[in-house]
Amino acid sequence: MKSDLCKQLGIEFPLFAFSHCRDVVAAVTNAGGMGVFGAAMMSPEQLEEELSWIDDHVDGRPYGVDLIVPNKFEAKGQDIPDEQILAMVPEGHKEFAASVLRDKGLDPGDLDARRQELLVFRDNISADGARRSLEVAFRHPIALIANALGVPPADMLEMGKAHGVAVAALVGTAQHARAQVAAGVDIIVAAGGEAGGHTGEISTMVLVPEVVQSIADMGADVPVLAAGGIASGAQMAGAMAMGAAGAWCGSVWLTTAEAETNPVVKEKMLAASSADTVRARSRTGKPSRQLVSGWTEAWEGKGAPKPLPMPLQTLVSEPALARIDQLSQTGDAGAQELATYWVGQGVGLMTQAMSAGAVVQAFKEDFLRGYERLQAALEG
Amino acid sequence: MKSDLCKQLGIEFPLFAFSHCRDVVAAVTNAGGMGVFGAAMMSPEQLEEELSWIDDHVDGRPYGVDLIVPNKFEAKGQDIPDEQILAMVPEGHKEFAASVLRDKGLDPGDLDARRQELLVFRDNISADGARRSLEVAFRHPIALIANALGVPPADMLEMGKAHGVAVAALVGTAQHARAQVAAGVDIIVAAGGEAGGHTGEISTMVLVPEVVQSIADMGADVPVLAAGGIASGAQMAGAMAMGAAGAWCGSVWLTTAEAETNPVVKEKMLAASSADTVRARSRTGKPSRQLVSGWTEAWEGKGAPKPLPMPLQTLVSEPALARIDQLSQTGDAGAQELATYWVGQGVGLMTQAMSAGAVVQAFKEDFLRGYERLQAALEG
Repeated sequence: MKSDLCKQLGIEFPLFAFSHCRDVVAAVTNAGGMGVFGAAMMSPEQLEEELSWIDDHVDGRPYGVDLIVPNKFEAKGQDIPDEQILAMVPEGHKEFAASVLRDKGLDPGDLDARRQELLVFRDNISADGARRSLEVAFRHPIALIANALGVPPADMLEMGKAHGVAVAALVGTAQHARAQVAAGVDIIVAAGGEAGGHTGEISTMVLVPEVVQSIADMGADVPVLAAGGIASGAQMAGAMAMGAAGAWCGSVWLTTAEAETNPVVKEKMLAASSADTVRARSRTGKPSRQLVSGWTEAWEGKGAPKPLPMPLQTLVSEPALARIDQLSQTGDAGAQELATYWVGQGVGLMTQAMSAGAVVQAFKEDFLRGYERLQAALEG
Repeated sequence: MKSDLCKQLGIEFPLFAFSHCRDVVAAVTNAGGMGVFGAAMMSPEQLEEELSWIDDHVDGRPYGVDLIVPNKFEAKGQDIPDEQILAMVPEGHKEFAASVLRDKGLDPGDLDARRQELLVFRDNISADGARRSLEVAFRHPIALIANALGVPPADMLEMGKAHGVAVAALVGTAQHARAQVAAGVDIIVAAGGEAGGHTGEISTMVLVPEVVQSIADMGADVPVLAAGGIASGAQMAGAMAMGAAGAWCGSVWLTTAEAETNPVVKEKMLAASSADTVRARSRTGKPSRQLVSGWTEAWEGKGAPKPLPMPLQTLVSEPALARIDQLSQTGDAGAQELATYWVGQGVGLMTQAMSAGAVVQAFKEDFLRGYERLQAALEG
């Protein structure tokens, strides 16, 4: 493809793969797209190791990094001691989470110990941790750096300019897109409400043209990537007909051979229809879209406690879900019923396990089919 | 355009305009698309009058009719007398609706009298009324008949075949699409959750390719129209790249010069962003997407009663909303704040009042722009 964005970033096909799995990142980059390594919750040391591995496997081809960097490098409440954070989690919530496991005949194990472990990661998303991760990222030959929450901090933007690295930001409304463009962001990712993970309510179909128009109205020339629900090349072509410069996908990589997704969840995703996701607060405290399972149903059901504000709900859900993942892989039917992960409505289009490289190839072919459909409609 | 569907229906451009306004229907048909007259809640006598008017204004060009025909021609509970239906509406709900008006300094007027009037329409959607409407529709030279709720009854399908009229049905899931195709429906309208009015939760971006694939997997060859959030030709091109045979739009006509939309609501729609809609049960008892207003906010707020099941909630909301519409047009600021109507997220893309014919023309031009974007991306 010969689009401006492809030329700018040195890629062949403007398909961006958000993944926490370095193998997926390298495979997509090597197949002509751009892998973007999701490094949130990772220590600077781990990040260094992962990016070095990627460097060794992409032969100089461009890839990106996605971080969660708190605005102004200030993590709210960073001085609250661990014990105090743990004490803020109500017993009723902990007990409810454990009861969901017990109701399926599972031994919850020591969830408190797992809660304690989770807190280790607070350091990584603190001001200093985030800053160190950013410095690690810029020591590698990255072509793009993305921030998932809010306007990237001034430091990220400055470091991006200084290193000639494009800075991208995710938005769920046209209003946020305008704020990001005004702040100097180079690439906007317009993420529709059908996306997996934290998501808003405006659909990709509407959000993409609205954001594109909104940026044009500012007199700015900032490319927009479409995200949310996209799992095929024809959808990518559709988004680009609406003005997007490419597609940003996360869910579609979860069922690839390379992905470290729980194999039980992989199978569930391949079997799921688009109706099998739910946007719920029960995982992190903020609305995020997940695969429907016994776990999400229990939290949506009568008698379930109201999810706690972020980050407390994570201390309730993640330890229990880690235990569920573990037990599900031993063949336990109850645990398999409860197992879930973040995924978008595009899961309904994910029906075949493939390698990440094969997914990129399928996107390219299906993109052409999408284009040819329009050609045929116009020319008969 | 030279697509199969265009040839089959004798239209130039596969843009379908659902509207309760005959002027919009005629204008779209005359501009090369297909107007589809929404005739639900209309008596057979009224329908006869409206369709005759359309016949006189389209010079033989094809148009369609959309009815709500109860399955198997049995309206559940049709023998319940009016007084008994009215008595089923709790005082608390009636009082809450009136209080929303009073809180804005409005005199609710005689809402009970309006409730009584609404019941007159029960006849029209009863088994006999629906059957008579269907007979009226087939006496006119219609090219398409659509049913909005569930699988069209066998009679509608048989009459469609006998008259050579395509039968269309709206669906919100791939599962429903398969059931409709199995029943013999000729055209599927895949309506995403961003659509105005009654709507599901799966987005257009995902639903369209999922339904297209699902029908192909059945070995069937049934065209799919994309609905939900579409207010521009580039989005229509996007949907067709994903496999749709055309677009079915409702919201985009509400702000046209011809539409009978309350002018106050028209202005609000032109100013609204895609974030200004809400999918709520407060209008009919089932989730339907509407423009956010003081009315919808009151029903979403604390202390609001839980919406009643269909059709009881309509007896609470419609009389109050009719009063609000009336008062808003006298310039009352409180009534203007409360005024609302069904509309999809595409409202964020509706920024200019145009004639319906000009909207069709703008769609055609923007469709080409969408196609050319893909061409430019591929060829540089």
